[in-house]
Amino acid sequence: MEHLFDKLLRNADSDLYPCHMPGHKRTGWGKLPSQLYRMDITEIDGFDDLHQPEGILLELQKKAARLCGAEESFYLVNGSTGGILSAVSAALPAGGHILMARNCHRSAYHAAYLRNLKVSYLYPQILREYDIFEAITPAQVRRALEATPDAGAVLVVSPTYEGRIADIAGIAESVHEKGIPLIVDEAHGAHLGFSGLVHENSSRQGADLVIQSVHKTLPALTQTALLHVNGEWIDRELLKRFLRIYQSSSPSYLLMASIDNALQYLEQDGEKAFAEFRRRYDGMRESLSRCKALRFLPADEKRQDIGKLLISVKNTEMTGRQLYDILLNRYRIQPEMAAESYVLAMFTVNDRQEGYDRMVEALLETDSRLLQTECPPLEICPDASCKDAVCPESVGTESAACPESIGMEAVGLAEAWDGSREEVCLQDSAGRLAGEFVNLYPPGVPLLVPGERITSEMCQQICNWLRQGLTVQGVNFRNGKQFVKVLRNRD
Amino acid sequence: MEHLFDKLLRNADSDLYPCHMPGHKRTGWGKLPSQLYRMDITEIDGFDDLHQPEGILLELQKKAARLCGAEESFYLVNGSTGGILSAVSAALPAGGHILMARNCHRSAYHAAYLRNLKVSYLYPQILREYDIFEAITPAQVRRALEATPDAGAVLVVSPTYEGRIADIAGIAESVHEKGIPLIVDEAHGAHLGFSGLVHENSSRQGADLVIQSVHKTLPALTQTALLHVNGEWIDRELLKRFLRIYQSSSPSYLLMASIDNALQYLEQDGEKAFAEFRRRYDGMRESLSRCKALRFLPADEKRQDIGKLLISVKNTEMTGRQLYDILLNRYRIQPEMAAESYVLAMFTVNDRQEGYDRMVEALLETDSRLLQTECPPLEICPDASCKDAVCPESVGTESAACPESIGMEAVGLAEAWDGSREEVCLQDSAGRLAGEFVNLYPPGVPLLVPGERITSEMCQQICNWLRQGLTVQGVNFRNGKQFVKVLRNRD
Repeated sequence: MEHLFDKLLRNADSDLYPCHMPGHKRTGWGKLPSQLYRMDITEIDGFDDLHQPEGILLELQKKAARLCGAEESFYLVNGSTGGILSAVSAALPAGGHILMARNCHRSAYHAAYLRNLKVSYLYPQILREYDIFEAITPAQVRRALEATPDAGAVLVVSPTYEGRIADIAGIAESVHEKGIPLIVDEAHGAHLGFSGLVHENSSRQGADLVIQSVHKTLPALTQTALLHVNGEWIDRELLKRFLRIYQSSSPSYLLMASIDNALQYLEQDGEKAFAEFRRRYDGMRESLSRCKALRFLPADEKRQDIGKLLISVKNTEMTGRQLYDILLNRYRIQPEMAAESYVLAMFTVNDRQEGYDRMVEALLETDSRLLQTECPPLEICPDASCKDAVCPESVGTESAACPESIGMEAVGLAEAWDGSREEVCLQDSAGRLAGEFVNLYPPGVPLLVPGERITSEMCQQICNWLRQGLTVQGVNFRNGKQFVKVLRNRD
Repeated sequence: MEHLFDKLLRNADSDLYPCHMPGHKRTGWGKLPSQLYRMDITEIDGFDDLHQPEGILLELQKKAARLCGAEESFYLVNGSTGGILSAVSAALPAGGHILMARNCHRSAYHAAYLRNLKVSYLYPQILREYDIFEAITPAQVRRALEATPDAGAVLVVSPTYEGRIADIAGIAESVHEKGIPLIVDEAHGAHLGFSGLVHENSSRQGADLVIQSVHKTLPALTQTALLHVNGEWIDRELLKRFLRIYQSSSPSYLLMASIDNALQYLEQDGEKAFAEFRRRYDGMRESLSRCKALRFLPADEKRQDIGKLLISVKNTEMTGRQLYDILLNRYRIQPEMAAESYVLAMFTVNDRQEGYDRMVEALLETDSRLLQTECPPLEICPDASCKDAVCPESVGTESAACPESIGMEAVGLAEAWDGSREEVCLQDSAGRLAGEFVNLYPPGVPLLVPGERITSEMCQQICNWLRQGLTVQGVNFRNGKQFVKVLRNRD
């Protein structure tokens, strides 16, 4: 089968004159490299139509399904965002009830808003040693489904932004027992399943809808993603309807060609590439084991993706932001993100040895400068009385007390977000109901969802993060003060 | 101000090592040119965030507003689709009533579906000489608004796909008198207003929300667009909410850089480029005036965009599809689209003299081969009894009789699309209510909208188009028969 970019190049080199969109007519204008324009076309003869594929795009999508172990796959050009919106919209009717992990990406909340869904949450455990969300467990899902008999679908994130991988096979079993579909936001796991050296993907473990950002962990252009569908639970015509709705009717062939390109090379050189990746990554971890103050989330074989290097500064004199700035400014390494107590860095099959070497040098030097204050042993959720669900310290909940394994917002998301709202000082917002999303960015997981009650702990936490220079979306600044939107009191 | 691609290239050439997304790490993999990857980044330090712009992206958007004569502008990476969805969603509340032109792009219908809007239509006149929709007039809008006192917003398309330009100033006045906002789908008019040699754009004529596909008529990459907002009618916070919802949280910097690139060159070389464009275009039209069988929609100064060359085969022995195939196969010119009685070709500032010369040669030769059968003089809507609104021959309506200046579907769009449906033979569908969109593609304007009654004329029309080899979406083929989805009869 001809590859899309070969076909695009052949078109560019042909004598065919373009009296059609795009307006650049395959020639450059200005400074952008002409390569970009040469291959950038619209749905002309022979290039199929993403929204009604019958030719090369259908073939490419079939190939993606085969490589990813899915029954049917769709190329996405509006990122995983478009995939999440489509999957949630197709999985249950407007006004339905979704059970979703509280650490979902904001696009999942947006889907719930657009479709006016009732939302119940699965609160992930907190891996306290590293201040991150643990993956959702099958036991959590089972218990939560007993408490929400009218739930129409379940949505979990795996891997999480920090790389925690859920037991999707176990979760799918629980969900299917209830006769409803499982959606997995696998945006951070497009590389999974391509080699025995990384974890299995969710499609091969029974998930009904799986969304993968190809650009995040594979060598494809930003904004590219895949949606996979399996089994009988999902109305595929309805799914295609929503893919047409949420995605441009002029999809970029550059983006699509870059998906093809990445998958083609995985097919061709994947095993070798992952072996090299693993070798380099393990070498880096081995070198980093000499650190005494900095700690690293173990890349265990079962539940942690090797694509993420989580560098913890917890119990040191340094904040995550400070380490981030040191890496960026002193060592010229751009990390993925800074949190309060850690920095996250990403590695993929495309990293060169130089990247690993520079990271090792930077961290060993920084470690030797650090005064270590305390470093207790790893423990997960020590409080057995909390069952599976530990009170999420960094997530707004209706009650400040430890919630049950699922919580319900005080006021529905859509009702709250569309409701009458006012701005108040962040310090005065405790006890009020959130009127706007507040996100720590990246990754864009909401700290506060409209309709949730703001706790004083959350106010304090947000103040701390802002003081540390972290990016908190949804907080406005005026005259040196911080404001958040809350629902007007009804009296 | 530094241009985005310069900044991206400087980043690529720096010593900064990327431990972040995207997974390609700015180096190629496979066959795609490395230029694409080098500049493709995510929201790293210094590159701002499209969904909360405070730096370079805010500056670029301000520049776009200045150049386009808008108060505030937004870069779009999910095409005009994302802009239409956002504009309609922000302009009126869920469940509101929209008055929209029946020749809107499918994304407008999708917005109405998502937001459960009540829809009333403005039926464009038919320019019978050329079988195309005429632009909506201020008088039509005024009358329609009297008949729909609860309408919350008006949406029109200008220029149309074929280049008809509406009197937006007049329409805006009528709409604002009613205290509601005007949305203009100007997807085909991103080039307007950049020179005295083309028409003025809608932002400068009082439209409140304007959506432009930068890629369609300017030299930018496919899937790029702009949304402009003016005046006090639109809640801008709400607009930003929907832009965040409908667009990827990982927007492509390549796409954004190509918008910057196009606008920058318009600013720098626009007058010269449009003068050259106009000179070449007028030269082509002059040469084509020698044709005797083929006719061309006049590029009048008032209501027809020069970017579109509409080549009519009406009253000749040739169909649009046949001319299209001749241009494509014999002359190696790829036209934009074929309709029953015409072919549409597009020209922009990026066309080379070669394109015009080849088109002239192809059409003069074809013309000399054609036996002309009849060529009546141009007339618009000769039937005065139809007032402004002429029965649209190629648009499904509830009644086969000439509709009033607005029509209402028999069943609401959302109710019908989500309703109980069945497939029937196209031939047996007359009299039934459509259960699915049926589009002639391009341009993707619906012939049938879910909930509209299918007339026998429409059935016949669709059969004709399919026979002529035109692309009709929403018709399924099985065992040599054509099927369409209709609502189940309620009995």
